[in-house]
Amino acid sequence: MAEDVRGNLEIENRGAVLVARIDGGPLGLFGNDIAEQLDVLVDRADRDPDVHAVVFTGTHPERFVSHAEVRWLQEGGAKVPSVGVKGASALARTARGVNRTGGMQSLLGKTPLWPAVQLERVHQTFLKMNQSGVIFVAALNGSALGLGAEFSWANDLRVMADGDFFIGQPEVLLGIMPGGGGTQRLTRLIGTHRSLVAILEGKPFSPAEALAIGAVDDVVPQDQVLARAMELAEHFGSRTKGSIASIKRAVYFGGSMSLSDGLHVERAEFLTTALSKVGQELMLDYMANSEASGELPLYIPGVYDEVLQTGTTRGAGTTTTSGSEKKQ
Amino acid sequence: MAEDVRGNLEIENRGAVLVARIDGGPLGLFGNDIAEQLDVLVDRADRDPDVHAVVFTGTHPERFVSHAEVRWLQEGGAKVPSVGVKGASALARTARGVNRTGGMQSLLGKTPLWPAVQLERVHQTFLKMNQSGVIFVAALNGSALGLGAEFSWANDLRVMADGDFFIGQPEVLLGIMPGGGGTQRLTRLIGTHRSLVAILEGKPFSPAEALAIGAVDDVVPQDQVLARAMELAEHFGSRTKGSIASIKRAVYFGGSMSLSDGLHVERAEFLTTALSKVGQELMLDYMANSEASGELPLYIPGVYDEVLQTGTTRGAGTTTTSGSEKKQ
Amino acid sequence: MAEDVRGNLEIENRGAVLVARIDGGPLGLFGNDIAEQLDVLVDRADRDPDVHAVVFTGTHPERFVSHAEVRWLQEGGAKVPSVGVKGASALARTARGVNRTGGMQSLLGKTPLWPAVQLERVHQTFLKMNQSGVIFVAALNGSALGLGAEFSWANDLRVMADGDFFIGQPEVLLGIMPGGGGTQRLTRLIGTHRSLVAILEGKPFSPAEALAIGAVDDVVPQDQVLARAMELAEHFGSRTKGSIASIKRAVYFGGSMSLSDGLHVERAEFLTTALSKVGQELMLDYMANSEASGELPLYIPGVYDEVLQTGTTRGAGTTTTSGSEKKQ
Repeated sequence: MAEDVRGNLEIENRGAVLVARIDGGPLGLFGNDIAEQLDVLVDRADRDPDVHAVVFTGTHPERFVSHAEVRWLQEGGAKVPSVGVKGASALARTARGVNRTGGMQSLLGKTPLWPAVQLERVHQTFLKMNQSGVIFVAALNGSALGLGAEFSWANDLRVMADGDFFIGQPEVLLGIMPGGGGTQRLTRLIGTHRSLVAILEGKPFSPAEALAIGAVDDVVPQDQVLARAMELAEHFGSRTKGSIASIKRAVYFGGSMSLSDGLHVERAEFLTTALSKVGQELMLDYMANSEASGELPLYIPGVYDEVLQTGTTRGAGTTTTSGSEKKQ
Repeated sequence: MAEDVRGNLEIENRGAVLVARIDGGPLGLFGNDIAEQLDVLVDRADRDPDVHAVVFTGTHPERFVSHAEVRWLQEGGAKVPSVGVKGASALARTARGVNRTGGMQSLLGKTPLWPAVQLERVHQTFLKMNQSGVIFVAALNGSALGLGAEFSWANDLRVMADGDFFIGQPEVLLGIMPGGGGTQRLTRLIGTHRSLVAILEGKPFSPAEALAIGAVDDVVPQDQVLARAMELAEHFGSRTKGSIASIKRAVYFGGSMSLSDGLHVERAEFLTTALSKVGQELMLDYMANSEASGELPLYIPGVYDEVLQTGTTRGAGTTTTSGSEKKQ
Repeated sequence: MAEDVRGNLEIENRGAVLVARIDGGPLGLFGNDIAEQLDVLVDRADRDPDVHAVVFTGTHPERFVSHAEVRWLQEGGAKVPSVGVKGASALARTARGVNRTGGMQSLLGKTPLWPAVQLERVHQTFLKMNQSGVIFVAALNGSALGLGAEFSWANDLRVMADGDFFIGQPEVLLGIMPGGGGTQRLTRLIGTHRSLVAILEGKPFSPAEALAIGAVDDVVPQDQVLARAMELAEHFGSRTKGSIASIKRAVYFGGSMSLSDGLHVERAEFLTTALSKVGQELMLDYMANSEASGELPLYIPGVYDEVLQTGTTRGAGTTTTSGSEKKQ
């Protein structure tokens, strides 16, 4: 059966942007092979100061990711007696512990706990994407259901192909529910009620619907999806990587906490950036340019638009942009 | 005075759906009689595997629920010296404790603590609606203010009659504030700022306004409200009850926590459904059908639309849908 | 350099509404002078039972607040070695402690901790605005970036001048990030994803964009901004101050917690208002008027609209509104 095809993530280096092509075999499935390669890629991109963005797209002609390998989800469960929500909660906690103490993983292969451990690892990979200074863009060349949709929600931006495609969470129709973050990230992306209704019904969004409610950021013809995603990756990736990381953590994590707790996260992240070398340099540069011209650079006509293109205020508002004029 | 009319909840059994008609007397008020009957109904619907949805509507010709019996809210408070927010918080906590140890309730009747205890019980009933595998639909045959609106927000779906009706929270105009969950559920339904402004002003929404901001799901002529609500109740109620319950808990509760905590709720609920008998059956059935046809059932043209109607992937994508072909 | 101009907050008393004009010098900057005067004003307005609203506007012809004094943010950081996010988190916590034990502040001036302490104080002032029974309205006579935008988000309502103005968070372009609550309040105002994208890009909103996404409540010609803001201040300020305070706390703070925790905040705040003198009076008055007419006042044609104008149900639905007919 096609589900046994080994999944693969092909990575192409395009300067500051990596393009990762998801090859889930002829059926376009997301299984543990892809999950493991994704985890390695996220770590690599996060650590490498020269990588500012990653664009994901599918190799299937009409699908980004069909959905998860169903056997992956089903197999372990078959060996375990049905547990209540408290038992499942304990199982999920144990799985988290196992992942933290890496050495135990080989011992657990093929035990009933195994799928819970793998599920937990996918969650950790997606969380690392949310914490990272890398901009992740899903270039949805076609449809994405289940874990394919959840992986899309874990990206920072989404571009979707126009046409007879769909994106959503059909799990309720299989007697289960989203397990890769769908109930949490879709809820925070499009609001509690829209998310609840979509997940309870199991009905996916068309590209136009997804765009209207903000589930995707742009819809373009299929042959322009990758180019548009690259454009966004380069544009957002041109900002300081440390700022991007701090902003993502403050919004994704702080923004989901109580207002008081979220503000504390912001203060800590703000101080990290304000005390950083690049933050100090750019603030001093901005003040010097302001003093030289007598006006705040961002309020000089035309300057803000330029700065949005370059991604930095370095040298902004000086009459000449030659190196000798700038404070580095 | 009309407020003394005993409220009643008339229940009609329509197969998988119960219709509950709220009779709040000639003035259409929601008092403690209705609250107690509602609590019994929610428990019954939750436990009965044959009940998948409950539709609520009002018996008043122009109102769903006018608002709470004001005497109910006022009476106890008159006997208590004004307390600060810390005192009120302690009172609310004590009330929760009293409800957990049921025996004390009869002792407390007519004491100053009594209204706080009853308020706490309404909160618990509404929370049980949010935790349940039952789909609750408010068939708003007319207006709903105060507790009537709050009860509507505690439902999963809302259908409202077109016409000169309104729904909202007028409490600020009486020098009080919403106390049945309005500041929390409306905020999560339509967003922080819209909710804040509406509650600070005390101005209700017209049916058209409510629809535009997502406070209700559909607006139809008054004589079609019940039929439309039944349609939604049957459609959403056709999904597996265990999945519905897990999804509602993950979205309503997990979705309001920090992202990390919410993801843990999702993992626990997901494992509960993935390890359930019906979840295992449907996943095995889906894999078998996929293997038989060489294609993922949800990607076979026409199949997804059928599945959305029946509410399950059981037998989906097989050439014949006769019983012998299906894995039960 | 112009950044050295001492900022000032000019306060004009217009009955129940105070108008505060922000004078940030020729460059319209928000520095520590303004922050300290703002804190005093917020406390005064909160305590004075005759003050129901405060309207803020800028004295600069085209700007509300340009942004923070950059030197303020930069200066202290220059003396501190770069710290990781854990170090910054510890710094932020220490700053909070210092603010609570006021006496230490004079000792810390010009030490590396000083900017963190001042930042923490701005956060506390903004939080006091969110907890207060006063309605705060930003009358945006022009642009607002950075801390100017963050101060706007800390208000309850925003009116913006139409024209070539902008409001937003450009910090990422200076290698830093919003530090005055922008990542938290904008996220809760316009939703996680819109906020994330705007802050990652550093691109501000035009008045029309801000209105479309709910970042401002109204856009009017520049010469009508103050009048429109006064109108909103008087309208919302006509409600009971205690109700306003409780509603704001329930929505801003409870609404950002888990549903269960938020409901507890609501119950405590509700009891505070229900047991208050004015709450008791208005509920008794409403019941008496209901009994006299045989109908609930809010359901008598025309009455609700009147009540929305006066801000109270006192005497509502009685045939005459002369004092002798009303229960005070």
